Amino acid sequence: MSEKRTELGDLGEFGLIKHLTEKFSNKQASTSFGIGDDAAVISISEEDAMLISTDMLVEGVHFNLMYMPLKHLGYKAVAVNISDICAMNGVAEQITVSIAVSNRFPVEALEELYEGIRSACEVYNVDLVGGDTTSSFSGLMISVTATGRAKKESITYRSGAKEFDLLVASGDLGGAYLGLQILEREKQVFQANPNIQPDLDGNDYIIERQLKPEARQDIIQFLKDLDVVPTSMIDISDGLASEIMHICTSSKVGCHVYDEKIPIDGKTSMAALEFNMDPATCALNGGEDYELLFTISQDDFDKIKGNPNMTVIGHITAEDDGRYFVDKNGSAIELQAQGWDHFNG
Amino acid sequence: MSEKRTELGDLGEFGLIKHLTEKFSNKQASTSFGIGDDAAVISISEEDAMLISTDMLVEGVHFNLMYMPLKHLGYKAVAVNISDICAMNGVAEQITVSIAVSNRFPVEALEELYEGIRSACEVYNVDLVGGDTTSSFSGLMISVTATGRAKKESITYRSGAKEFDLLVASGDLGGAYLGLQILEREKQVFQANPNIQPDLDGNDYIIERQLKPEARQDIIQFLKDLDVVPTSMIDISDGLASEIMHICTSSKVGCHVYDEKIPIDGKTSMAALEFNMDPATCALNGGEDYELLFTISQDDFDKIKGNPNMTVIGHITAEDDGRYFVDKNGSAIELQAQGWDHFNG
Repeated sequence: MSEKRTELGDLGEFGLIKHLTEKFSNKQASTSFGIGDDAAVISISEEDAMLISTDMLVEGVHFNLMYMPLKHLGYKAVAVNISDICAMNGVAEQITVSIAVSNRFPVEALEELYEGIRSACEVYNVDLVGGDTTSSFSGLMISVTATGRAKKESITYRSGAKEFDLLVASGDLGGAYLGLQILEREKQVFQANPNIQPDLDGNDYIIERQLKPEARQDIIQFLKDLDVVPTSMIDISDGLASEIMHICTSSKVGCHVYDEKIPIDGKTSMAALEFNMDPATCALNGGEDYELLFTISQDDFDKIKGNPNMTVIGHITAEDDGRYFVDKNGSAIELQAQGWDHFNG
Repeated sequence: MSEKRTELGDLGEFGLIKHLTEKFSNKQASTSFGIGDDAAVISISEEDAMLISTDMLVEGVHFNLMYMPLKHLGYKAVAVNISDICAMNGVAEQITVSIAVSNRFPVEALEELYEGIRSACEVYNVDLVGGDTTSSFSGLMISVTATGRAKKESITYRSGAKEFDLLVASGDLGGAYLGLQILEREKQVFQANPNIQPDLDGNDYIIERQLKPEARQDIIQFLKDLDVVPTSMIDISDGLASEIMHICTSSKVGCHVYDEKIPIDGKTSMAALEFNMDPATCALNGGEDYELLFTISQDDFDKIKGNPNMTVIGHITAEDDGRYFVDKNGSAIELQAQGWDHFNG
């Protein structure tokens, strides 16, 4: 008997999850929404739901301790989960943190890590309520689960975008990716000659975007204050293009995204030029910005107009119209999602 | 400046968690109980609470794929979390599963793993609602988070045991530990001579106790049907002695546990004899039985009397009276918790 062997990379990360979970079916009445969005939705009362999101960070895959201070790592591990709760238009309340760690780490290193976790708990007003601590044979692994709460009527799924809706991004994009490029470059310089000090001058902003991303809990509050419930939402963890594709696929719509509208900080643009890269490409395919991407009804445009935290970058079209990126010359190019793929890294 | 370096093993697993989390304080009104029991308790309505528990299983630390089939591993990863929800007297409803896996595993191996997860979801009537799948540089890691629900008034903490309460164990103990000894022995025989087939005959029961433990959801239902709310409860994951100590410490009480009362299956006793071990020692220090240990008021004794699933193994005393194990000769020996310690493995 010959055993079939399919490599993990053959399916891609999203394909693999889908393949492994397709035989599962939900039985509990409280499960309002399971796999397939930024967080699961559990009904807890007639009006309220609990949101649950979980992420795993693996040394060497998601972070490199050569340039990622443990305190920042702890902060980031929490922030990326809070970001998932934000993406459902919810407010995070609790987290659990499990770590697997090899003996090469002293207690003092874990104290740094937990100092970062605690700092994030303070900033995002969440409680650490549980976890697990175990040894590993190699490196450090962190698994964080966040719970949050939302009114059922204001939960935003990836699937709610409608034709003519506006596509909006929070903050600015591409910075985290270019921060990583700077850190990688300086690591190589250091490895070639440990006497050369890293040259990070002038790049503080984009390096911080990589090392200490923030969950946009403030945007969720803004939207609430403005009385805007987005029709769909997702957080930008894998690059803008990939996230737009998720919304389009889940919502069965097309879109037009405009190059010149994509919010990019001046420092990000300068760093992109240094690396001979197009800043928009960094935003589209870079990832890890942890901004929010959402769609709103045109009726709500006046409410967000002029808000420096939100930028309209395009609009939703009918599914048959396709998904297009319109460059600065007005040429429409079909959107391609590259995103991250850990198995084919 | 000399940097202080404290080894992880110096604090022990429980000491380490306590040390790392002692600076955290809870801010959310919904956090009823955080770190320090089998699950966290989140208030979701006046009467109801959600329970959250999380566990991480690491290849080479918690399981050995040489004798642990992936399907059983998936089942066990779910069962041990459900067991934590049971230990709070709650009913599990959802789980999330995150895995980090190296490229040495083909998709077919993960299919096996998820087949076991799905089987556990069916048996325990829980929904898989989320997770994360990523690559790792070495081996397989599984992080499961379970959510459950309970009426606030019937939640059982470790801290509720009172003097004169009866100490009760479900099922029988020590089997999982001896199953592991059999598997380890046969692994060594196989490594010495791969032509010798493993001799597992007659040891099916204890091997199954190790490879496919069950969460005692049935006991939670029994207790409900009998109208018994235990005064305290914990699941037996680390060995009976360690769990008794947890209840005594949290409840600020002492106890007497009787050697002759500890429920041990005949097959477990026989295997213990084969290894020249005392069966009670295997129950006290072995771990991984995933039975429930709880205390009940003496008034409830008549309700559980004669129930083959529950055995009174001792009683609670005042804290000053100490924690004692009374052997078959009537000698009282102070209880020592050895349990598992992954960092000093």
